[in-house]
Amino acid sequence: MTSHTKYLTFNTPQRRALVNITPECESALAESGIREGMMLVSAMHITAAVWVNDNEPGILQDAMDMLEELAPEGPDYRHHRTGEDNGHAHLKNLLTHHQVILPITNGKLDLGPWQTVFYVEFDGARSKRLIIKTIGE
Amino acid sequence: MTSHTKYLTFNTPQRRALVNITPECESALAESGIREGMMLVSAMHITAAVWVNDNEPGILQDAMDMLEELAPEGPDYRHHRTGEDNGHAHLKNLLTHHQVILPITNGKLDLGPWQTVFYVEFDGARSKRLIIKTIGE
Amino acid sequence: MTSHTKYLTFNTPQRRALVNITPECESALAESGIREGMMLVSAMHITAAVWVNDNEPGILQDAMDMLEELAPEGPDYRHHRTGEDNGHAHLKNLLTHHQVILPITNGKLDLGPWQTVFYVEFDGARSKRLIIKTIGE
Repeated sequence: MTSHTKYLTFNTPQRRALVNITPECESALAESGIREGMMLVSAMHITAAVWVNDNEPGILQDAMDMLEELAPEGPDYRHHRTGEDNGHAHLKNLLTHHQVILPITNGKLDLGPWQTVFYVEFDGARSKRLIIKTIGE
Repeated sequence: MTSHTKYLTFNTPQRRALVNITPECESALAESGIREGMMLVSAMHITAAVWVNDNEPGILQDAMDMLEELAPEGPDYRHHRTGEDNGHAHLKNLLTHHQVILPITNGKLDLGPWQTVFYVEFDGARSKRLIIKTIGE
Repeated sequence: MTSHTKYLTFNTPQRRALVNITPECESALAESGIREGMMLVSAMHITAAVWVNDNEPGILQDAMDMLEELAPEGPDYRHHRTGEDNGHAHLKNLLTHHQVILPITNGKLDLGPWQTVFYVEFDGARSKRLIIKTIGE
């Protein structure tokens, strides 16, 4: 078994952002030399998510709108008693999960025809990290 | 380390369907010969999910009903400007995740007493794929 | 490749509970001797979840409150026709996922600064299990 670790750092201009990181995942795979295995793509902060979905701006905005309904940005979360204002971002992270696993077959990410990997920022405009951990052979 | 890859293809008669795929996961494990490791079970389309839950029809329908409340099928998603009509299915996929990892111990899927693996189709009636990727030794 | 398996058993005094299991994950890693790999932390019951989030009581209660809105405890789920009363717990499990993967780098859990691992009980006051499966080298 071999393994490979890569970190990405984001500092998005807006507090909410969607970044297509499929090319970075492909680069990490090429660096690893792994041909069969699994790649974990995981946000290291608790106010961001990782999604695999369609690279179509409409559906991505639909998803952001749905999350705003389910976990709206607002002033009255208990978390804000600590001085924070990002309670909604923690909840959006919990609802859509902070990580995915990408299968690796024949030296490629084994994704379906429309599967694109996104880093999803709910509380950006500051430095945040993500880990890409690949294991296999 | 060894690895094994298997693809399942679904073409459900209805657009929504729940398929118990635990037997297929067990078959994949037997084919792999792996005794300790992890099995990734992941939808390759972005309008389907993979759940581990109770094989009890009531709770499965309850889950479908909840998702219909949170991400209803309807005509007004931004995604539909592309000509699609399945925006709700993308959102249901995001809320319940498109993949699970099954632990493998002593040559068996190491699941709890009621844990059953389901492929959950939100936009079927056409050919769609899922990958079962197993790594271990 | 090497692997390591550990089970935790919970019997929380209340039906809902949040237990910080980061120390148990660190112990499992030390027992495994693995320095590079992945750790699966997965509830073996379908009415509990595993979260990675901030160890701040306010946000954890905010998350429980949000889930009570999205999947309220109530008497009228179809699942209750079987005699059960925990339909809400199955739904909360589905919405927030029953498992996470922790990356392992240089012999440590490779978590971000605020990432804490929680076992989240939605239907406790009885014996329930969780598996920690580690693979790597």
